[in-house]
Amino acid sequence: MKKTLLALTALSLAAPATAQRYDLEPGAHDPIAWDFVEGISTEVGPRLAGTPDEARGRAWAMEWLRANGFANVVEEPFMHDTWVRGEETARIVSPYPQPIVLTALGRSGSTGEGGLIAEVVRFDDMAELEAAPAGSLAGKIAFIDHAMRATMDGSHYGYFGQARRRGPAIAASKGAAGVVIRSIGSDTDRLPHTGGTGWDEGQEPIPAAALSNPDADNLTRMLERGQPVTLEMTLTPRFVGMTPSGNVTGEIVGRDPSLPPVLLACHLDSWDLGTGALDDGVGCAVAAAAARRVAEAGRPLRTIRVLFAGSEETGLYGSTAYSEAHADEPIAAGIESDTGMGLIWEMSSNFTDTNPDLYQRMLRAVDGYGVGPSTDVAAGGADLNVVRDQGGAIIELQQDISDYFGIHHTANDTLDKVDPAILAQNVAVWAALVNVLANEAGPIKPAE
Amino acid sequence: MKKTLLALTALSLAAPATAQRYDLEPGAHDPIAWDFVEGISTEVGPRLAGTPDEARGRAWAMEWLRANGFANVVEEPFMHDTWVRGEETARIVSPYPQPIVLTALGRSGSTGEGGLIAEVVRFDDMAELEAAPAGSLAGKIAFIDHAMRATMDGSHYGYFGQARRRGPAIAASKGAAGVVIRSIGSDTDRLPHTGGTGWDEGQEPIPAAALSNPDADNLTRMLERGQPVTLEMTLTPRFVGMTPSGNVTGEIVGRDPSLPPVLLACHLDSWDLGTGALDDGVGCAVAAAAARRVAEAGRPLRTIRVLFAGSEETGLYGSTAYSEAHADEPIAAGIESDTGMGLIWEMSSNFTDTNPDLYQRMLRAVDGYGVGPSTDVAAGGADLNVVRDQGGAIIELQQDISDYFGIHHTANDTLDKVDPAILAQNVAVWAALVNVLANEAGPIKPAE
Repeated sequence: MKKTLLALTALSLAAPATAQRYDLEPGAHDPIAWDFVEGISTEVGPRLAGTPDEARGRAWAMEWLRANGFANVVEEPFMHDTWVRGEETARIVSPYPQPIVLTALGRSGSTGEGGLIAEVVRFDDMAELEAAPAGSLAGKIAFIDHAMRATMDGSHYGYFGQARRRGPAIAASKGAAGVVIRSIGSDTDRLPHTGGTGWDEGQEPIPAAALSNPDADNLTRMLERGQPVTLEMTLTPRFVGMTPSGNVTGEIVGRDPSLPPVLLACHLDSWDLGTGALDDGVGCAVAAAAARRVAEAGRPLRTIRVLFAGSEETGLYGSTAYSEAHADEPIAAGIESDTGMGLIWEMSSNFTDTNPDLYQRMLRAVDGYGVGPSTDVAAGGADLNVVRDQGGAIIELQQDISDYFGIHHTANDTLDKVDPAILAQNVAVWAALVNVLANEAGPIKPAE
Repeated sequence: MKKTLLALTALSLAAPATAQRYDLEPGAHDPIAWDFVEGISTEVGPRLAGTPDEARGRAWAMEWLRANGFANVVEEPFMHDTWVRGEETARIVSPYPQPIVLTALGRSGSTGEGGLIAEVVRFDDMAELEAAPAGSLAGKIAFIDHAMRATMDGSHYGYFGQARRRGPAIAASKGAAGVVIRSIGSDTDRLPHTGGTGWDEGQEPIPAAALSNPDADNLTRMLERGQPVTLEMTLTPRFVGMTPSGNVTGEIVGRDPSLPPVLLACHLDSWDLGTGALDDGVGCAVAAAAARRVAEAGRPLRTIRVLFAGSEETGLYGSTAYSEAHADEPIAAGIESDTGMGLIWEMSSNFTDTNPDLYQRMLRAVDGYGVGPSTDVAAGGADLNVVRDQGGAIIELQQDISDYFGIHHTANDTLDKVDPAILAQNVAVWAALVNVLANEAGPIKPAE
């Protein structure tokens, strides 16, 4: 990390002296969180699961945690079936020759160096693909053109994301030689969105890629003209076998270490196209900085543990490994930060009805920052398997992610997209919430 | 072109029936201009000077002009010293290994397939580069990090663009093995801005590339940490020798063909990264559609000629060739459209003082669309050499190009960036202006 930034300027957890719309000082900035995300983006960059880059990320994060006063900083390794990107180029061969921008989906098969040339068959959406007769895509490249709509709460990612997660396997089952999807993203940049896809048991991976939105537009316009469209694509990703990945944890040790800890989770791996600043550099920055802020305000009752999970993007492997390794160690409550850069606007939990007093105290702690209640029952994010598997307490702090799917999983995931004022709000909200949770003596989610 | 769009829906040149802020109907759309830019972006795509892609662009444009009622559609070929892009990859080798996104500048030298590995030496701006001692860059990669500020009138392009146009030659003269510049662009996308650079007489081209702005940020942060930074880059562009390029012209023949014509210019070539929708697809679309609109309102007195110039991006070769070939053929007045997508807000000419009556009539024709006067003396753009060389009348219609340098010369130059309402305003302004000029019997710029 940048040595000059280690002086830990305090961001007050108390209400500011002057009235503001929200309880943040003008020019609010959190130097601890910024130091983390600036440092890992600059000094490590992309951290694809199972690669030496991810290992450098773990080493960097452990050093950072120790330098920032965390105790019990440990790495918990596990093995990971690793996939790496290769060459990726594409062009329309006919009738309108021109280059096309795409990127392989995680776990895509390879075309081989000779590439694949095939006619494109377009589908409006997954329902239309699913309705295609068996064998009807033999030798073709299926094109799933379902355009994502972004929402403030990110709720549409599940629906539209199916084209990426399941589309390739379905197309392959109908004989397709390859698949291209319209990027699961809301931007109009010539930067395709990668992300993991999956194959059915025993299914041979076929080449599968995402087109940037402008390229999907262009391909659609070509197809609308009525002539067959032939696409050539060369994708040479490969599976490199089982390689090391791992989780990193660190602790602010509480006054009563016998009490179950509060777990703040994020993931340290990233896709390889960007630098993982938003996904999930800021998530780990917020978790770690919030833990530090609580510690600065006075040693908490409970231990606060940060979990920087590995290999989240490729299938939540770190989260699964952590849950298995810590099945017998109760966690008091879990929170995760993994939705990029946006103000937190809503809080849900899975104990709102069963522990309303605590929920109301949590809400009062954060509502000065513009965070309101939700009637949703929090289920937790990708890196909270350990809490879900234990049936434990989960809190969700919903960010405004209206813009996040413009950048998500693209090369544009870089530090300049991190807004220091939003980052400071995130840390302030987290710190206020964690301060309540880590000083709560009683059970957070009462047994049902 | 798309056959279904050939029905030429009329856009009224007269004031609309209902009061609007400007003299455009709600939902204003110009189907002729849209058909051009949609068609060339989809059916041709990038059109790098001197390549077969540019030749396909000429063939496409000639067919389009004929189908849209233009007479005397001709191609005027010339030979062009052609440069084509090759592989382009880069990474930081140490101390913070990670990929870096860059693109070769036009006429960059090659690193060879083995690439170039060298230490980076950063310069704030051109003045600092120029002050570097002779030989001080031997074996180094010079990094010119001057960040462009975009302006409404585009006036800063000349100043900031010098890092691209002259920076590589200056760095080479001081012994640099390679050059990277911060993109001449105002965006924060991971899409570098290409553009031409030039070499001194007898100078051997060295590898020269533009970093995307986020990558320039990242490299700067690395350098600020104080350790030497080593960059590896592989650029394999090559000069392919003299190949055919050409200009395309077409005419709306006036009632009195003995009068000098009004020339509407744009360029048909584009850089290779995008699809040339904005640079300069919309320019040719506006010029051609305006000519059509005037013809639809009644045959004009003077001939209106459109000039779709070739090889503008690589050094105004088409404009020069056209001027040489037509030196003895007077042009009544010239206008050019080549500043992307933005509302026209200002009009200047080089006869405002010498033919004030005409200038006032032109102004009254366009001010209903939000266009005001300028005290600047119009000098004309890249493709108006023929008019400049003759000392003829030049009009400039200034677009709001605040956003244009976010897209200019990048892969993001695609059809989705074309706003149909802005395109319609551009055509309406041009048509209103050309209607005045093409029906003006007297001299437009009186002899001095």
